[in-house]
Amino acid sequence: MKYYKSLQDLIENFQMYPGIGPKTAERLAFFTIQKCSKEAVESFSKSLIEAIEKTKNCKICGCFTDQDVCEVCQDEKRDNTILVVSDTKDIIMFEKTAQYYGKYHSLNGLISPLNGVGPDDINLASLFERVKSENIDEVIVATSANIDGEMTALYIKNILEKEGVKVSRIGYGLPAGGDIEYADEVTLIKALEGRKTM
Amino acid sequence: MKYYKSLQDLIENFQMYPGIGPKTAERLAFFTIQKCSKEAVESFSKSLIEAIEKTKNCKICGCFTDQDVCEVCQDEKRDNTILVVSDTKDIIMFEKTAQYYGKYHSLNGLISPLNGVGPDDINLASLFERVKSENIDEVIVATSANIDGEMTALYIKNILEKEGVKVSRIGYGLPAGGDIEYADEVTLIKALEGRKTM
Repeated sequence: MKYYKSLQDLIENFQMYPGIGPKTAERLAFFTIQKCSKEAVESFSKSLIEAIEKTKNCKICGCFTDQDVCEVCQDEKRDNTILVVSDTKDIIMFEKTAQYYGKYHSLNGLISPLNGVGPDDINLASLFERVKSENIDEVIVATSANIDGEMTALYIKNILEKEGVKVSRIGYGLPAGGDIEYADEVTLIKALEGRKTM
Repeated sequence: MKYYKSLQDLIENFQMYPGIGPKTAERLAFFTIQKCSKEAVESFSKSLIEAIEKTKNCKICGCFTDQDVCEVCQDEKRDNTILVVSDTKDIIMFEKTAQYYGKYHSLNGLISPLNGVGPDDINLASLFERVKSENIDEVIVATSANIDGEMTALYIKNILEKEGVKVSRIGYGLPAGGDIEYADEVTLIKALEGRKTM
């Protein structure tokens, strides 16, 4: 059975997403042509383009934003702490807990010697600059609980403890080997509360 | 946490699909802005519009096609049988088995007195016309194994047995209460082989 081209194209395009295999892609494509209104599909199509065209990375923290500087970095009432993540979308996961009132910083990666990623390949230099220029009291390292995450946390601690800055690491609640992306909000709140000075 | 508008819009649009909740929609939206190339997103966006603009229903059988008459109905070598389905996409499920060489007909619904759907509300009249005009030997009713499916099959049998047309119903393999959409191809082949004259 060959589908006609426009249906086949749609099925293949759906499969670029993780977790969407051939069968799910088929179901989504059929839903699109069978159950969705033309307006809904046009709105979806447009929002894909708009999202990718308007999304930038905040010049200061690296978070996704549609402005030059994100809303968190623009907010002058934020605490003088920086929560450091490896993956930009983890910022949004923590922001959704509504229990953290400080700033963020995305490393956009982790130190990983096995993969040839050194400290200069991720956004560490800008973190250390911010710690000085923004008078930061505490840096909370929220990397995942794996080897690269531990190593990156240790590297940050070694640099910043010389400067007299408190470095802590989220701990309680994040399951070993787990990924921040899949944690629920309560677990993330516990992880923030249970952080330990390194 | 409020997302910026274009990201929020994309997340909401993903949620129009069945099986995509807020968390999955978020993951898909982040994957879009973070991991997909601009070309891939543009291709996806375009294919959504093309699929919905180019998809028509075949004038004869009702199947999805980008022409006036679908490839199966154009194929003169097809057997003189009609396989009747309630949902248009079920045609494609059977066609993928590559074990059925006849024609198809989509009722686009089932007789369902409880929901106020009578025989005139679904594509039954055109089925009976086709059985006469196309010299059909056998009508295979492939409706799901539930009350509405049984009732519709019985209705078709009652009309067509007066005309001397053999009416059969797929049987072996389709689990009771199950949905054709979720059946694998082997099950559908078994269902075709195990059909019984009504």
